[in-house]
Amino acid sequence: MNLLLLEAGEVDAGGGVTVSGARARHLLDVLRVDPGQTVRVGILNGPIGTAHVVACNRPGGSVMLTCVLADAPPRPAVDLLLAVPRPKVLRRLWAQISALGVGRVLLTNAARVERNYFDTHVLDPATYVPLLVEGLQQARDTHLPEVSVHRQFKVLVEDHLDALAGGALRLVAEPGATTRVADALPTGSAPRVLLAVGPEGGWNDFELNLLGRHRFTAVDMGPRTLRSDTACIALLTLVHDALRARPSGTPSQA
Amino acid sequence: MNLLLLEAGEVDAGGGVTVSGARARHLLDVLRVDPGQTVRVGILNGPIGTAHVVACNRPGGSVMLTCVLADAPPRPAVDLLLAVPRPKVLRRLWAQISALGVGRVLLTNAARVERNYFDTHVLDPATYVPLLVEGLQQARDTHLPEVSVHRQFKVLVEDHLDALAGGALRLVAEPGATTRVADALPTGSAPRVLLAVGPEGGWNDFELNLLGRHRFTAVDMGPRTLRSDTACIALLTLVHDALRARPSGTPSQA
Repeated sequence: MNLLLLEAGEVDAGGGVTVSGARARHLLDVLRVDPGQTVRVGILNGPIGTAHVVACNRPGGSVMLTCVLADAPPRPAVDLLLAVPRPKVLRRLWAQISALGVGRVLLTNAARVERNYFDTHVLDPATYVPLLVEGLQQARDTHLPEVSVHRQFKVLVEDHLDALAGGALRLVAEPGATTRVADALPTGSAPRVLLAVGPEGGWNDFELNLLGRHRFTAVDMGPRTLRSDTACIALLTLVHDALRARPSGTPSQA
Repeated sequence: MNLLLLEAGEVDAGGGVTVSGARARHLLDVLRVDPGQTVRVGILNGPIGTAHVVACNRPGGSVMLTCVLADAPPRPAVDLLLAVPRPKVLRRLWAQISALGVGRVLLTNAARVERNYFDTHVLDPATYVPLLVEGLQQARDTHLPEVSVHRQFKVLVEDHLDALAGGALRLVAEPGATTRVADALPTGSAPRVLLAVGPEGGWNDFELNLLGRHRFTAVDMGPRTLRSDTACIALLTLVHDALRARPSGTPSQA
């Protein structure tokens, strides 16, 4: 944990907060904080700052802190359209998605997604929110990705995508594509990017055509077939790296 | 499994082989092969080709194949110097390392590596070879990464690195570095790359100085602190992408 994440309602007007439970245990047993020390702190979907440790109640398992908060970090400039992976793979992926930085996750059905992938705890916010928070605490971000689940791919792409990710540059990773991610971004102002990552067996022709008709540019995935969690991490890395390399600097917050 | 991997000794002079056990089960139950079909096949550390399914013994759990082999794929042009991660993280990482493509893995101690990370099954070839093979079968490669474990970081860097990875361009991922991976590669002939990835808490100053004195160039990891498996996948992705983007084409096999 590189950042202690709090909810806005936990902190009083003077910046005071007392944490207990797993977060207190981590502060006391792993970080071994003592009164007088400071820790990095952030408010979920809000600013980041430092917290001064006022008191430690080791037997009771609680820590009293006073927070000094500054600015919110920029919202990640990448959104992810992801065909629902196997539950085991998705469980592993949640924390890595939020650690790498994603504004919005659109989970979708596809021809090669098994029906029963939808009937699983890993699509339940009670399961994935703590995993997303774990990734934010790892990467020192406060922006909880917005997650939505779409059982009809065609309806999502045709009817909902403009509202959900209208202004974003749309990329779809496709074996055999020749355009590198870095070369798919226009010069000039840095856009948001919506990255589509297919199921383990790939998008089918209908899905690729539909994405192509809705302004998705096919980008190279490299010559190796990767497991969908590895592919997802690799592609998010390439998009973030390409956005950082742009001369125009900070990505749009739109 | 996108490639059925065989050992050279399993295949007879005419290309015939009978597989049983887990590989036969996968062919019969997941890929549901029948006589007359073909599957992609490769020889560990050797060529790749196709195999014709001659006979399926479903009750006995065996499959008879005839292989037609062509060329070996190129050896991955990236080697990895990795501070031993937590056993749970390393277990998850093995298959992803071989899927992404690594010629050699040098696992090393570092100040922020816990001693007990060395006393674990995940450093035992009996554990990691099957995981590496799983990654090769996923990515359709045959080159099993060569793995060595080094308990003394200084001795490794000063005395053994030139023999193990002499001609490689050396990169070390370091928070705060400003050189992008893509900009660290020289123009002209594509080199092998040796990528150093530190422990969860980072290399310490002594280690960074030692690497700097031994021709490691510090490269940017981005502004986010990633778990070491996510960081490893992200960095291997950036190095492979930068090597693929080079105009000079195929990397050196040295």
